[in-house]
Amino acid sequence: MTSEKELIAAFLAEDVRTGDITTELTTPDSRGRATIHCEESAVVAGLRYAGMVFELMGVDYELIAEDGSRVEEGQEVMRLEGPLRGIMSCERTALNIIMRMSGIATATAAVLESCRARNPKIRIAGTRKTTPGFRYFEKAAIAMGGGEPHRFALDDMMLIKDNHIKAAGGVAEAMEASLDAPYSMKVEIEVDTVEDAMTAAKMGADIIMVDNRTPEETARFRDAIKAINEDIIVEASGGITAENAPEYSSSADMISMGSLTHSVRAVQFSLDII
Amino acid sequence: MTSEKELIAAFLAEDVRTGDITTELTTPDSRGRATIHCEESAVVAGLRYAGMVFELMGVDYELIAEDGSRVEEGQEVMRLEGPLRGIMSCERTALNIIMRMSGIATATAAVLESCRARNPKIRIAGTRKTTPGFRYFEKAAIAMGGGEPHRFALDDMMLIKDNHIKAAGGVAEAMEASLDAPYSMKVEIEVDTVEDAMTAAKMGADIIMVDNRTPEETARFRDAIKAINEDIIVEASGGITAENAPEYSSSADMISMGSLTHSVRAVQFSLDII
Amino acid sequence: MTSEKELIAAFLAEDVRTGDITTELTTPDSRGRATIHCEESAVVAGLRYAGMVFELMGVDYELIAEDGSRVEEGQEVMRLEGPLRGIMSCERTALNIIMRMSGIATATAAVLESCRARNPKIRIAGTRKTTPGFRYFEKAAIAMGGGEPHRFALDDMMLIKDNHIKAAGGVAEAMEASLDAPYSMKVEIEVDTVEDAMTAAKMGADIIMVDNRTPEETARFRDAIKAINEDIIVEASGGITAENAPEYSSSADMISMGSLTHSVRAVQFSLDII
Amino acid sequence: MTSEKELIAAFLAEDVRTGDITTELTTPDSRGRATIHCEESAVVAGLRYAGMVFELMGVDYELIAEDGSRVEEGQEVMRLEGPLRGIMSCERTALNIIMRMSGIATATAAVLESCRARNPKIRIAGTRKTTPGFRYFEKAAIAMGGGEPHRFALDDMMLIKDNHIKAAGGVAEAMEASLDAPYSMKVEIEVDTVEDAMTAAKMGADIIMVDNRTPEETARFRDAIKAINEDIIVEASGGITAENAPEYSSSADMISMGSLTHSVRAVQFSLDII
Amino acid sequence: MTSEKELIAAFLAEDVRTGDITTELTTPDSRGRATIHCEESAVVAGLRYAGMVFELMGVDYELIAEDGSRVEEGQEVMRLEGPLRGIMSCERTALNIIMRMSGIATATAAVLESCRARNPKIRIAGTRKTTPGFRYFEKAAIAMGGGEPHRFALDDMMLIKDNHIKAAGGVAEAMEASLDAPYSMKVEIEVDTVEDAMTAAKMGADIIMVDNRTPEETARFRDAIKAINEDIIVEASGGITAENAPEYSSSADMISMGSLTHSVRAVQFSLDII
Amino acid sequence: MTSEKELIAAFLAEDVRTGDITTELTTPDSRGRATIHCEESAVVAGLRYAGMVFELMGVDYELIAEDGSRVEEGQEVMRLEGPLRGIMSCERTALNIIMRMSGIATATAAVLESCRARNPKIRIAGTRKTTPGFRYFEKAAIAMGGGEPHRFALDDMMLIKDNHIKAAGGVAEAMEASLDAPYSMKVEIEVDTVEDAMTAAKMGADIIMVDNRTPEETARFRDAIKAINEDIIVEASGGITAENAPEYSSSADMISMGSLTHSVRAVQFSLDII
Repeated sequence: MTSEKELIAAFLAEDVRTGDITTELTTPDSRGRATIHCEESAVVAGLRYAGMVFELMGVDYELIAEDGSRVEEGQEVMRLEGPLRGIMSCERTALNIIMRMSGIATATAAVLESCRARNPKIRIAGTRKTTPGFRYFEKAAIAMGGGEPHRFALDDMMLIKDNHIKAAGGVAEAMEASLDAPYSMKVEIEVDTVEDAMTAAKMGADIIMVDNRTPEETARFRDAIKAINEDIIVEASGGITAENAPEYSSSADMISMGSLTHSVRAVQFSLDII
Repeated sequence: MTSEKELIAAFLAEDVRTGDITTELTTPDSRGRATIHCEESAVVAGLRYAGMVFELMGVDYELIAEDGSRVEEGQEVMRLEGPLRGIMSCERTALNIIMRMSGIATATAAVLESCRARNPKIRIAGTRKTTPGFRYFEKAAIAMGGGEPHRFALDDMMLIKDNHIKAAGGVAEAMEASLDAPYSMKVEIEVDTVEDAMTAAKMGADIIMVDNRTPEETARFRDAIKAINEDIIVEASGGITAENAPEYSSSADMISMGSLTHSVRAVQFSLDII
Repeated sequence: MTSEKELIAAFLAEDVRTGDITTELTTPDSRGRATIHCEESAVVAGLRYAGMVFELMGVDYELIAEDGSRVEEGQEVMRLEGPLRGIMSCERTALNIIMRMSGIATATAAVLESCRARNPKIRIAGTRKTTPGFRYFEKAAIAMGGGEPHRFALDDMMLIKDNHIKAAGGVAEAMEASLDAPYSMKVEIEVDTVEDAMTAAKMGADIIMVDNRTPEETARFRDAIKAINEDIIVEASGGITAENAPEYSSSADMISMGSLTHSVRAVQFSLDII
Repeated sequence: MTSEKELIAAFLAEDVRTGDITTELTTPDSRGRATIHCEESAVVAGLRYAGMVFELMGVDYELIAEDGSRVEEGQEVMRLEGPLRGIMSCERTALNIIMRMSGIATATAAVLESCRARNPKIRIAGTRKTTPGFRYFEKAAIAMGGGEPHRFALDDMMLIKDNHIKAAGGVAEAMEASLDAPYSMKVEIEVDTVEDAMTAAKMGADIIMVDNRTPEETARFRDAIKAINEDIIVEASGGITAENAPEYSSSADMISMGSLTHSVRAVQFSLDII
Repeated sequence: MTSEKELIAAFLAEDVRTGDITTELTTPDSRGRATIHCEESAVVAGLRYAGMVFELMGVDYELIAEDGSRVEEGQEVMRLEGPLRGIMSCERTALNIIMRMSGIATATAAVLESCRARNPKIRIAGTRKTTPGFRYFEKAAIAMGGGEPHRFALDDMMLIKDNHIKAAGGVAEAMEASLDAPYSMKVEIEVDTVEDAMTAAKMGADIIMVDNRTPEETARFRDAIKAINEDIIVEASGGITAENAPEYSSSADMISMGSLTHSVRAVQFSLDII
Repeated sequence: MTSEKELIAAFLAEDVRTGDITTELTTPDSRGRATIHCEESAVVAGLRYAGMVFELMGVDYELIAEDGSRVEEGQEVMRLEGPLRGIMSCERTALNIIMRMSGIATATAAVLESCRARNPKIRIAGTRKTTPGFRYFEKAAIAMGGGEPHRFALDDMMLIKDNHIKAAGGVAEAMEASLDAPYSMKVEIEVDTVEDAMTAAKMGADIIMVDNRTPEETARFRDAIKAINEDIIVEASGGITAENAPEYSSSADMISMGSLTHSVRAVQFSLDII
């Protein structure tokens, strides 16, 4: 897709700007080869985008690992061949993409694994708490880790949060307003009480978010909702961490976690000239 | 500066895209006020940029805290007044900026504090291991936390790393090549041995980076370099964490840490409609 | 929203390019007033965007009619006050926006009216058959005319068409594949036989499109689908025109029509300097 | 030309945005072939630009018909070969371009044919009443249909309209002002009376537009103008439709018609995977 | 016009990039005033654009001289009032615009003056030999100096040069081809022989360029052309300098000179903080 | 590097805009060859960028001369092969780049040669007095001529000029402020008196600029500075021309000259179809 390419080109330009003076002065204008390997066990993500960085400087690449697969410490993930200077000038941008995306994919996969041990059908979703300018790639990384990207932007779905409910005058009023949403959009609403959850369920919510509740409370909301309509998706949200996520896994259909993108640890990779 | 505004506008467009359907349907087209507060003790950063987000939708703002200052849990940092819908449509983008920038500023300030307890002159620097598309703001956050942004891009300074030295044929050859660098640029080089450090020092390096060494080894490099030229800046780098950074603080003039930007925890903020 | 402004600015630049030489040479650099009126009965749309055009040249505007309201021949819709040259240089771009958007809104409203006479709950939707570069505004015009915009882009919703079904190997296989769609997206599928419609209905389709069928056939599909799940939306599509649309209005929940955007007649407006 | 490519890329991005989820989930990552054919008799236009859309996703194409040629119902116009997913993701954007451009070319050719039956030298021109963002292609479509694009933008030519004459203080004053126009530009003026036409002709107008007149009146203007200078082009304009255009064809050198772009019916095309 | 503003913003961003570190560290965040004066006698040009630079940083300006007027050494041309830091960060970009544009306007005015002493009707024109990225402003500067901008771009006018004639197979063939040019465009052709000039004149050329001839030869071409059609503009071109231009001024209607933009000396201006 | 390509594409679009009508109508759609040669003795620069222009229209090129090498009158520098129309539509943009860049490189090389006759170590530098929109290429041309580009933008280096010193309250105060500059930046300061020069030297300036002084005065400043620190670079600046530059060559380490970019004569090149 075109816009991916434009974003990738902007990322490279952010790093190279008017030119890589160090490489120009120290590195011969010859061809060379390099390899990228992962320095720890991880779910690798972003290799395809890293490849697009190298392509911009005429460097050919071969993917040794696939995006979304698990790699072990020291495992090679990508091989490069082309102008030596190009390889070196692209290095940082390419690694930055892989490091952050793999961090997100790895964190997502880890939560998913610990939660599925308890509920094999549970889904783990991201939020819109992403790094400005890099959201598209952070959402993609969640998907590569096995998770749900959730809304890419405010126009993806109707998601009625506490401030909207307050502004509309209540859950019933907000759900009433949602009837004017395009028929192609799902409607999700955040609820505070079981009563509100039941109102929303009756008025056609596709997804109901139970925010900042204990696993037990969340389960109570879930039961009340499902009693009205089995097809409604129940999403647990709010302060859920990698540690306590498993406890929620039997209380909802889906768990959404902002920390997957806003507070994630990068995975270490390095590039070596051969 | 113009380009800041363009970046901020792109961040908002990334989130709003074709429109905030939820707000449009639930929220009256009236004016309102809101407040943003910090949910934990932190060094706040990015408020000025968050303000620029709100300005794009005609929302006036007042900064209650200053970028770079410490705030406590529950402290108000910003007040908003304007179209209620605008406030709500900008919320996520503005908070994403503050949350990540404050996370970086807080981590930087924490390392700086623990290191300065041992060496009041030590400087803490970032690296180019930033999130693609958001580097400018991550560098600014480091500065707001009291740190050094280090290179914004490959054209800022000459920084000769191991791959460049290999390509040039050795430290002496690489330093020789650096004589052709623009006179306005400093020259930094990464060294592996004390002998190489001494060669670089004699051949005019402005900064010498000692990579992946223990604090004791780093100090030995430092002594050899300073014996040749007191003005050369010695930078410790490589796998230095918030935990072990203080141990390096008496072995170098500066410590650079990729984790300040690639693996940082966001600070929690929230926006409430009044 | 920012991107609206950028699109509007690009539209004006498309027309003005390096400058309006005629106005510069003939028109004094003074202030003036103008009025825009509609030359026929229509549902007016796009006034807000026309206003944004004039704003770019420092011209103030007052909306006399509201977007989405019906106006009669000769009725004033907008008043302008500002630099006379600015008014004249913006005229064509502003009118082009209003003329096309009002054409679409008027056509949508007309179909809606004739269909609702038979089925007050019927919804009329657009398609992705829009003018490249102007889709956002054409979708907005449909909404202003009372219709449904339908998908803005390929990432809005999953819509499985005949070519996708062929590629997937059948309706069941395609519906199976749709289980991997993000939970926030609705799934729509186009069906060829009642049997396929029933398969799709059982496998979780949110919307089923019955393409290129007579009203009677469409009703048969509808009945079979609703027997399985009342909540599934049935969309009639394919060669439906303003003339035959009413016949479909009792056979489906929604009728989608490409002609609303790809073959619409513009509404005439003119601007007079006062 | 570069800017064509950028516009085409923007059109594709408008449709694909963050990705074509339906194709990704249903369609194998293999190569395939497809064909595009026209569903009615038409003058085909825009094939070259449709080709540029497919190129952006690595799809090769072969043009079976030429832009500007007449094709019959069912005739194949273009063949595609490449990644199956790319073909499907490009389909709508490519067809939208061809459908609208062919609609314009077909309408232009039809008017031209009916008018040339009466006056073989008559020229048919478009206006600036185009769809914002798509003007370049609508002008190109007019040319492909055998017509004159007329001004692409306000800096193409000096065209003094009624509002300009009013602002300048009269036809003579406006023509006087036109002496300061760059020598490379032609000067056209819209006139209301035969007297004004004669003034303009004497003062050097290259083209004189007779607006909103009957064919007989237009001929009277024409005669008065040509008596002064045979080389002046006389343009009939204002409310001329496909129906009444032939009546004007012996009264002027050229007929300009806004409806060719603002109210045109699209030609139907479809794409089939082979 | 919007695109002017975008160009100006890009010029400022080219200079400021990520920030003006010097001003930030040395200059208080207070308001101040400044004045710009010209250091030599010149025709000043670009003040309006310089003003747009300052506006981007919130600095108010007052023009003391008008674009296109003559100023003497030491004369004040512009006054500034606003944030002191903004004034200083805009200085270089604003001065660069004025210096180059004034250089072009001054050179144009000088040639015009020396030529009009011999032929008061002679016109001096620029060419497309401009600095990439700054053409629009260089063309504007020529106009401010009293000259003709000539073509802004390849789509402004048809200009048939030697390579085109060679490609077309001769002057007659090229003029024949020009009949397909849009009627709104003038047709200019470069000729090598008087015979070719006469052919072009007879076949409808609006302008004929006599390239690389002595003043006497040019006059012979002129006479032959005017004998056929008085209205055809004769343009002398090719290696004409400020020195020899007057000799051509009685041999043609217009003289075009690339050196006005490709080899011009800047006029010196300076900005002083008051 | 990506951004070079985008700039080059924008330059071509500036010239071609909506299309090269002349070439389209006169030139067959066939392949052809062409050659570019230099019409005078010069240091050629910009060939690589000219090549990028031709590439945008599918024209292959071969460089016969290298950027930065001296060529003689009539010498071929570049050969082209590809679509004839593409060659002709790119001609002007490509030549404009080479002509201006070669003018700058040639002027730089000439000054360098005359100065090195007196002081073989002297360096010649540009300034920020460049053409807006073309700075990157003007800086590159200086380097190709053997000179120093100096600051590309305000964020390259700290350069404290007279207005900054005034704002800071004095040289000592400004140097004090410079301690907060990022450690990766050099600090340069402009001084007015020998005393100020000595203060700056003692307080850590990396470079000291002596502005608007005679060669003798400059030498006195130099001696005072070097007595304090041999490593400080002394830059002579202000009103230095090609004529008087050699006189300064023994008084400083470097001479910076605005005229290299703001008042340079273009080198003539021409393109011939073979």
